[in-house]
Amino acid sequence: MKRIKTAVVGASGYTGMELVRTLLNHPGVELVAATSRQEEGRTLGEVFPRFGGVTGAELRFIGPDPAAVAAAGAEAAFLALPHGVAAEIARALLDHGVRVIDLSADFRLRDAAVYEEFYGHPHPAPDLLAEAVYGLPEARAEAIRQARLVASPGCYPTSILLPLLPLLREGLIDPATIVANSMSGVSGAGRKADASLLFCECNESARAYGVPKHRHLSEIEQELGVAAGVEVTISFIPHLIPVNAGICTTITATLAADAASERVGAALEAAYADKPFVRLRGRGAAADTKHVTGTNFADIGWEYDPRTRRVILMSAEDNLGKGAGGQAVQSFNLMCGLGETDGLQSV
Amino acid sequence: MKRIKTAVVGASGYTGMELVRTLLNHPGVELVAATSRQEEGRTLGEVFPRFGGVTGAELRFIGPDPAAVAAAGAEAAFLALPHGVAAEIARALLDHGVRVIDLSADFRLRDAAVYEEFYGHPHPAPDLLAEAVYGLPEARAEAIRQARLVASPGCYPTSILLPLLPLLREGLIDPATIVANSMSGVSGAGRKADASLLFCECNESARAYGVPKHRHLSEIEQELGVAAGVEVTISFIPHLIPVNAGICTTITATLAADAASERVGAALEAAYADKPFVRLRGRGAAADTKHVTGTNFADIGWEYDPRTRRVILMSAEDNLGKGAGGQAVQSFNLMCGLGETDGLQSV
Amino acid sequence: MKRIKTAVVGASGYTGMELVRTLLNHPGVELVAATSRQEEGRTLGEVFPRFGGVTGAELRFIGPDPAAVAAAGAEAAFLALPHGVAAEIARALLDHGVRVIDLSADFRLRDAAVYEEFYGHPHPAPDLLAEAVYGLPEARAEAIRQARLVASPGCYPTSILLPLLPLLREGLIDPATIVANSMSGVSGAGRKADASLLFCECNESARAYGVPKHRHLSEIEQELGVAAGVEVTISFIPHLIPVNAGICTTITATLAADAASERVGAALEAAYADKPFVRLRGRGAAADTKHVTGTNFADIGWEYDPRTRRVILMSAEDNLGKGAGGQAVQSFNLMCGLGETDGLQSV
Amino acid sequence: MKRIKTAVVGASGYTGMELVRTLLNHPGVELVAATSRQEEGRTLGEVFPRFGGVTGAELRFIGPDPAAVAAAGAEAAFLALPHGVAAEIARALLDHGVRVIDLSADFRLRDAAVYEEFYGHPHPAPDLLAEAVYGLPEARAEAIRQARLVASPGCYPTSILLPLLPLLREGLIDPATIVANSMSGVSGAGRKADASLLFCECNESARAYGVPKHRHLSEIEQELGVAAGVEVTISFIPHLIPVNAGICTTITATLAADAASERVGAALEAAYADKPFVRLRGRGAAADTKHVTGTNFADIGWEYDPRTRRVILMSAEDNLGKGAGGQAVQSFNLMCGLGETDGLQSV
Repeated sequence: MKRIKTAVVGASGYTGMELVRTLLNHPGVELVAATSRQEEGRTLGEVFPRFGGVTGAELRFIGPDPAAVAAAGAEAAFLALPHGVAAEIARALLDHGVRVIDLSADFRLRDAAVYEEFYGHPHPAPDLLAEAVYGLPEARAEAIRQARLVASPGCYPTSILLPLLPLLREGLIDPATIVANSMSGVSGAGRKADASLLFCECNESARAYGVPKHRHLSEIEQELGVAAGVEVTISFIPHLIPVNAGICTTITATLAADAASERVGAALEAAYADKPFVRLRGRGAAADTKHVTGTNFADIGWEYDPRTRRVILMSAEDNLGKGAGGQAVQSFNLMCGLGETDGLQSV
Repeated sequence: MKRIKTAVVGASGYTGMELVRTLLNHPGVELVAATSRQEEGRTLGEVFPRFGGVTGAELRFIGPDPAAVAAAGAEAAFLALPHGVAAEIARALLDHGVRVIDLSADFRLRDAAVYEEFYGHPHPAPDLLAEAVYGLPEARAEAIRQARLVASPGCYPTSILLPLLPLLREGLIDPATIVANSMSGVSGAGRKADASLLFCECNESARAYGVPKHRHLSEIEQELGVAAGVEVTISFIPHLIPVNAGICTTITATLAADAASERVGAALEAAYADKPFVRLRGRGAAADTKHVTGTNFADIGWEYDPRTRRVILMSAEDNLGKGAGGQAVQSFNLMCGLGETDGLQSV
Repeated sequence: MKRIKTAVVGASGYTGMELVRTLLNHPGVELVAATSRQEEGRTLGEVFPRFGGVTGAELRFIGPDPAAVAAAGAEAAFLALPHGVAAEIARALLDHGVRVIDLSADFRLRDAAVYEEFYGHPHPAPDLLAEAVYGLPEARAEAIRQARLVASPGCYPTSILLPLLPLLREGLIDPATIVANSMSGVSGAGRKADASLLFCECNESARAYGVPKHRHLSEIEQELGVAAGVEVTISFIPHLIPVNAGICTTITATLAADAASERVGAALEAAYADKPFVRLRGRGAAADTKHVTGTNFADIGWEYDPRTRRVILMSAEDNLGKGAGGQAVQSFNLMCGLGETDGLQSV
Repeated sequence: MKRIKTAVVGASGYTGMELVRTLLNHPGVELVAATSRQEEGRTLGEVFPRFGGVTGAELRFIGPDPAAVAAAGAEAAFLALPHGVAAEIARALLDHGVRVIDLSADFRLRDAAVYEEFYGHPHPAPDLLAEAVYGLPEARAEAIRQARLVASPGCYPTSILLPLLPLLREGLIDPATIVANSMSGVSGAGRKADASLLFCECNESARAYGVPKHRHLSEIEQELGVAAGVEVTISFIPHLIPVNAGICTTITATLAADAASERVGAALEAAYADKPFVRLRGRGAAADTKHVTGTNFADIGWEYDPRTRRVILMSAEDNLGKGAGGQAVQSFNLMCGLGETDGLQSV
């Protein structure tokens, strides 16, 4: 079997590590480059002892040089870089003919002005926004297949969009009433030596943060708006909880005046029955992060409360899996004509 | 200093353990009885090695017999019993002249029909409902001082009522728009050998449960209604997260049409500036469970999101402390003429 | 590719779950039967939501009937049953021509009298002891290849034997001085509704247990004795720590009077350089459970302390992986002529 | 009641925080100064939200200036500073007439050469070594009472010395055979922004570190040698486990040739029956960190294994409590003529 040559740019953080993990386990992939300024010269196995002894883990980190990535033969590159930095690297890789799956926020927004509003600096490559595809495979498989540049969604957005999109498309809920509360594992905050992320600061702790205007709101509202056909503004409150990985999201929204509650389940079924990575748990069933960590699955349950006329949507995913690395590989599979689930089936 | 003789009925669970802990540390209290059918005859120190060697821990568990509790000299008794069971014990203790702080749900609702709706059986002592005082000291200190029977609020209700009551009293939010999401430590589920509460089922897990009509909704809506002066129906979604103790609650509600957002902070200040156990964190500050575990504090932060016109309220408490045992002792202090903070000041 | 038909008998506990997980991910295996008295009739995906949506997870649990397992076409069966129960099932399966990999203790000891001493009842099938092979693939690959009945080692023994066997074979340490301290994740205690295994009893806790004569000592000392050529008696102190999975073992032993410390590293290298699942971390490097959880790897580091003349051996494995299910599948691979690492390469 | 004026120098780390916590709860103490270069000007309650609202928490941090500490009226000062830094501050405070309880390693060793060997730099104040008292109150209460300068023991040493000292004094074990394995909570590593201490690096992880010659060995062996009357060299292997606080230590040593195993229990009883903070769990009972966290207790259990002739000692303490701040306050109580348990009785 011919294997597709891939690279991970920015491979020393948690998202990069998850990408490397997934690609090392992927039968259709050869990992030919991994970059990290600080780990340059060391092997994957030395930097991540978990990968020691695995075929491919003898690869040595190189610096984040697009030309070197291209020279290594990479046909596709995953970027796990900070926003603002990713765009320039993406452009250079595209210029070298390397297809790009960018996991930063740089190409997720259609509107450079919204980017500047939420990220605090002008967009670094506004000319590329038109061609970038927001890479939620359950919503845009065809566009992803054709894309040269995929903007892979963030972890919170994925957990919020998957349950909501089908309901908004069918007009089943009032978009003005959406409230999303999410709980994230600590790996979502990245692998930086920050005192607030120390074990003793996170363990036995639960806390909201980033209210009222977390950066991910921008892409969430953009995509909800596309589905609803109107502008959507929501409340989103992220929380940090003491687990390594996993996002648990609970969303409430008022059922549309003319909708029957059973249509909620039907809409989810219609949207996801044939989607391999969305598992519908049915009415009355919650979603538990422990069933999805280490996988590319998103689990969704729902309930309807006639007392308040609110729909309750409950989703779970691995913030590093379906919320980052796994989803990016899912898009990569589509882009490269591989099976959508190749390399992503382990549980 | 004369010490008041107290008893804990149902002292072998987590709430009972926290009550015992607090009372052993309380300079104004002598613990004269602790009951548990299964631990009868063993000392507190044997059952709870944490208490070994502490003055008072040589007390032996007795069976849950009200006459024996009264005979031990108890002037006040804390009941940490299942709902349905507590009511009869409470009546018997009251008949023996023992004042009762009940931590079950039996006396929290004013309306026996609502009790039956939420708890699934007829109320076991409807005649006592009229005199029972819902024991939230920040809301009803005077009534508690006079009470013979206090129904100490549940952990979720406390975390939801404290931030909301002042806003509803002043009409600052629209009561029809309240959505409360709570995350609870596992001790809130009790100390029963249930497979779903095993370490490996809860660790690295986050999940909603009890939707859409958790039992605590009944007392929450009752008390919110009292404050609002109208019937209030809310959405409440509890979640289980892998911490031993602590409740982190996030509430959203739409600002009333005629209200300025600054009034939210002012209302909280007015309500709690002189309350020793509510710590206001101010606008933009979240509440973190790690700062309140082991204490009787409830921390409250808030934010306003002009994009959605929603107020965001964030509270944290120890589900066993301010959410159970600590709060019960706070009421006890008031009932007995002790200082409100006596025995509750450790951090 | 022809896939080998396999069964898991006793599939509803943590070890059974890990076996099912590994076999569902194994490209050379078809899982044709999973048994559980209590889950009979439900699918794998219903019992273990993690497996939902995975090919093969629609299999329904059957009762623990060897004839039914054979009738399902199983060529090999894994037994994840309590000791004492496994032996009779094993015999019946063997009689049906099904090869057996038993993960209980029933066939690990050569001597039925030692079994009775440590397990408290007469051996249930002493006639089968002679043919059972102690299934540590790094020590007995050839015998495993030929075996009809493999007794797969326990989690503690694997973490202790792998570092010690090469040193004892070469006479590098004094066998009378071996002290092994192990820390185990809570899944090692099984999936039973036992109050001591509740989240709140294990979280923020560390404790020794099972001293001084844990049952696993019997197989540890048997195998150490084989390697040393003399009877070996050791101290073994297991501890429970708040992680889901993983065993971290630290062993001290006095360097033999005539041995140079460098020979320790050389002996480990010689024994494991070509073994795919043992990763040597080298002198001075510890082994961390977080690098092996979810894998079939055992990591080993070592140090020598000239002050005390003691060798320090540090190993880490997943108690459910290399310590249970993974190791059993590794033996299965050998028995069936598959590649030793087939289905076990994910990290 | 007159309260003694105290200061905490270096109050922004975990040990400093625990000292502040204990002193704020201490009825016989007034905290008059807390120092921290980085937190200068902020209040205790701002830096540690846990302390917000507590009497005394309005105190503002000052810089680490001994003259200012003395000027604040401090009669005694606790130093929670890095080794090497503490000595000079200690000297200056002593010169100002302030008694010092130093929690660093600077005054724990009698021999400046051993200090240099283990800490890698010349001793900063060798002239003070003679008067410093190694502050293990269970061993040296009288000397502590008279001391101007107490060197409060480290967390590992306390957990190892308490079980071993009585046995060595009575010659019950062979000192050449001592092996100590300890598991520590992550707070023991301090509150520094170090990537290896991030939540995701410590959670679901267990690992040895610091072998074979951890710095604490120096004071452990010094004190064991005093008790044994001969030089003692031991093996000590510390491990990091995912709990906030707590040390669990397991020690093995060969019973002396002429000793009966029952004498082990008798020696422990004789040593600790009247000591308020050592709780003997008896033969066959382990010690669990969850029963001692947040307290000043050290729990000790023991067992004897006739198969190996080894005694097994199991201890548990809070590394920040009896292993640091609590113990220091216990010494302070003795120095100041307070009750030994004052301010340390909460459980």
